[in-house]
Amino acid sequence: MSEKRTDRECLVNGEVSEWVHHTDRGFTYGDGLFESFAVEQGRPRFWQAHMDRLKRGCDTLGIEMPPQELLLRDTRTAAAGQSRCVVRITLTRGVGGRGYTPPEDTKATRVVSAHPWPEGLDTLGRNGVRARTCELRLALQPALGGIKHLNRLEQVLAAREMQAHPGLEGILLNQEGFVISGLHANLFIVVDNTLLTPRMDRCGVRGILRGLLLRDFKSRVELRRLHPAMLGEADEVFLCSALRGIVPVTAIDEHEWRIGKVTREMQEWFEARKAAT
Amino acid sequence: MSEKRTDRECLVNGEVSEWVHHTDRGFTYGDGLFESFAVEQGRPRFWQAHMDRLKRGCDTLGIEMPPQELLLRDTRTAAAGQSRCVVRITLTRGVGGRGYTPPEDTKATRVVSAHPWPEGLDTLGRNGVRARTCELRLALQPALGGIKHLNRLEQVLAAREMQAHPGLEGILLNQEGFVISGLHANLFIVVDNTLLTPRMDRCGVRGILRGLLLRDFKSRVELRRLHPAMLGEADEVFLCSALRGIVPVTAIDEHEWRIGKVTREMQEWFEARKAAT
Repeated sequence: MSEKRTDRECLVNGEVSEWVHHTDRGFTYGDGLFESFAVEQGRPRFWQAHMDRLKRGCDTLGIEMPPQELLLRDTRTAAAGQSRCVVRITLTRGVGGRGYTPPEDTKATRVVSAHPWPEGLDTLGRNGVRARTCELRLALQPALGGIKHLNRLEQVLAAREMQAHPGLEGILLNQEGFVISGLHANLFIVVDNTLLTPRMDRCGVRGILRGLLLRDFKSRVELRRLHPAMLGEADEVFLCSALRGIVPVTAIDEHEWRIGKVTREMQEWFEARKAAT
Repeated sequence: MSEKRTDRECLVNGEVSEWVHHTDRGFTYGDGLFESFAVEQGRPRFWQAHMDRLKRGCDTLGIEMPPQELLLRDTRTAAAGQSRCVVRITLTRGVGGRGYTPPEDTKATRVVSAHPWPEGLDTLGRNGVRARTCELRLALQPALGGIKHLNRLEQVLAAREMQAHPGLEGILLNQEGFVISGLHANLFIVVDNTLLTPRMDRCGVRGILRGLLLRDFKSRVELRRLHPAMLGEADEVFLCSALRGIVPVTAIDEHEWRIGKVTREMQEWFEARKAAT
């Protein structure tokens, strides 16, 4: 085992390390949660919204959330010296237990790591993306709906499928055939100036930017089941994610769109929102 | 981070270690598979059946299966000096990649660890278990049906639920309300000397012992959707797992059974089967 440690870029339970124990339940069962976010000049973007989602995930899984100050300190340490990077916080139930049954007195494992800013992330908003519906259909699991947990095999399988279509973004439907989201972002369609987006109560992730959109544009957004046929009636389509911002969708399968004024309005909102946090 | 290494009991990629990298996709996404099995006097029980299931899982996820000889060597090294133990093989897609998309040239990570024989495992067969239906319902995901992957949050949630009912085994239904399995084992019901067991094509795990039963008792087993009401018509009910063997079920919710002659026959079959491999 070669210990290729890069100074301070990863902390495990607050100490510089790149290694987790093989009996950590994150590794054995995917028993945990994660958050990925931008850190610019030491300031994590949309921090409180990420913490709120992490807390909801902890409540759902019955994991004790570490104090936010601890996670913030780890984040700043991991990102130190980088003008802009992505930080991932992984929080697992901890080490051990007999099989699926969690141990009585486990302590959550927290891993906080900094990663280079992904190439090409900034240009997505300008030109938009073309997309394609994945064959993989998301399973319905209300007990895990909306939270950002570590059981991500569906997304991995969909991403593998999309490797045959380089440059295209994947669109995910659920087992009932309704549109749920993009592979890396939530999805909104614009119909007559109203923003429609699916509920995330039975599958999918409640995205941070989606949550902020629902709050800031309460009167213009409707939560709706989206049948793929509704794409034909959409004036505009966009994806949103805390990392990527508002990304116009210019095509899904046979449907095509120009980048519209509501999408551009949302991009301006995002820039202002980003600067304000 | 304290390095509490116990000599040779865990191998990571063939080397003595208890640690996996924090970017291992097993940890970040549950992107991998596992097998747990008994090793007695250095002989892994039902080895080929476990290897066959692992291979099917690798094919499903697109992970390259390491040579069996390597896994066998690791297993023997990890279990060395123990008269009886449980060995777990965890196989992940490997380290890294940008988000969900797997890296082009990753190499699978293999973790092979030995664990003490669980207390109480041997007496289950004698007295049987009482069981209770879990509230958690398994999601339907044909793309992952039957394989033993690392996305086990549903089982963890069901196990947490069962902590309120100590001593009872959990019975899992799927989202449609059909009986799928026990929390730690597959399930068979006996009706008029015929063995009925559910298909594992949309959820659940294709158990090793289940597979051997299907092969050895081909003419007496039927794959069947099991509505919970069918429990009322069952003469006998048993659970089966490669580790636990054939475990009589004496109660599920309001239904009760005596330990019957077919169950006892299967227990004799298991003892003979075990000795023969």
